[in-house]
Amino acid sequence: MTGKLFAIGTGPGSSDLITVRAARLLANLDVLYAPAGRRGGDSLALSIVREYLTDHVVIKERHFPMSTHEDEKESIWDTVAEEIRQDVDAGKQVGFITLGDAMLFSTWVFLLERLQGRIPLEVIPGVTSFACIASRAVFPLAMEQQTMAVVSCTAPEPELEQALQQHDCIVMMKVYGRFSQVKALLARHHLLPNALLMSEASLPNEQCFRQLHEIGDDVALPYFSTILVNKQWLAAEPQTV
Amino acid sequence: MTGKLFAIGTGPGSSDLITVRAARLLANLDVLYAPAGRRGGDSLALSIVREYLTDHVVIKERHFPMSTHEDEKESIWDTVAEEIRQDVDAGKQVGFITLGDAMLFSTWVFLLERLQGRIPLEVIPGVTSFACIASRAVFPLAMEQQTMAVVSCTAPEPELEQALQQHDCIVMMKVYGRFSQVKALLARHHLLPNALLMSEASLPNEQCFRQLHEIGDDVALPYFSTILVNKQWLAAEPQTV
Repeated sequence: MTGKLFAIGTGPGSSDLITVRAARLLANLDVLYAPAGRRGGDSLALSIVREYLTDHVVIKERHFPMSTHEDEKESIWDTVAEEIRQDVDAGKQVGFITLGDAMLFSTWVFLLERLQGRIPLEVIPGVTSFACIASRAVFPLAMEQQTMAVVSCTAPEPELEQALQQHDCIVMMKVYGRFSQVKALLARHHLLPNALLMSEASLPNEQCFRQLHEIGDDVALPYFSTILVNKQWLAAEPQTV
Repeated sequence: MTGKLFAIGTGPGSSDLITVRAARLLANLDVLYAPAGRRGGDSLALSIVREYLTDHVVIKERHFPMSTHEDEKESIWDTVAEEIRQDVDAGKQVGFITLGDAMLFSTWVFLLERLQGRIPLEVIPGVTSFACIASRAVFPLAMEQQTMAVVSCTAPEPELEQALQQHDCIVMMKVYGRFSQVKALLARHHLLPNALLMSEASLPNEQCFRQLHEIGDDVALPYFSTILVNKQWLAAEPQTV
């Protein structure tokens, strides 16, 4: 059998928000590469897919540091890419799982850069976190001729400001650790009533904040926190039925 | 049993790119509202979900015109919203299917505006077309601190131009009927080598064009055609294995 790598988007967090195609592929893997979890437990990506795996799959957890020296990061990606290449060359069906969608703000691309053209590979898309947040909060994103920007709050503030000025809808990822600055920016543009924040969408601890002006600047937000802005829609809870 | 409406994103086209949650919900519906197909056949959304439906579900196809007078459109949305409300009030589990994701450039929002706060409802996210295209073409979208814009080619040209100038990645939807103008715009910004066009992603007739400068201005593109631009990535086919 010819080996192949499948890069699989796991969706935002709940196991049943993975695609049917991903679920079926996971059941046929020989080897699964997964980001290593913290404190000995499963990573979120691994916990999402665990129910679809068979007993015979070999799980290879690998630690991808977030904020070390560039050289160290490069060297880790090189090493994992080489391991994957060897497994595929040995004829194995190999999976690599990545949160959300596989091609949108995904670190999987660091492996892709090293493996494309060298081994057979296929990418399986997933539900992005911001689509999940919009659904869970029943808060629509762009429609018709409107435009949408997706930005990371780690970007320079003038870029965030430009996106807020020019687009109808703005997805602001990685709010963690930057809430007070982002809140001040939204307030300056009179967009607080049009913004909501969701943490850990589709997970048991999902939290949705619809009144951002009421949240203190020193709030301790979970790591997976995103703000959605829609200039044509109010974030306030609709009347209940 | 209490009635409820489920607005379900079907994903981009292939039946197995629907979420596991959507597949399970579809099997439990009493009534399914679907856009009417052309020429008597199923609509694409209905063809995607048909394999997950049970025999007892009542399928109510409704025609949503794309380009008639505003008044006529409004009246059709009013009528369908009222039908759905009656089914939910009668205690039924009601589905409404919409291509791609349910909250991103989705006409479902016209029904949501009419039904929110009046009936119990839940939205199930789906894989967006542009995430699917990025995966199928193995062409990544934004990473890390990069920013991405999602625009419709029906928007005024200055808006498209601004998006091309200011973002690292740009998703250009609804290219159909506007290819020559969009191609000229990309050429003016020297972005043709960084752009690819995909039609009918994940469907049997999927087509991917990686050399946009080679496509004639008068090409007959399928209706579902989208251009992805990534300033840090070349669209040319990678070396094969």
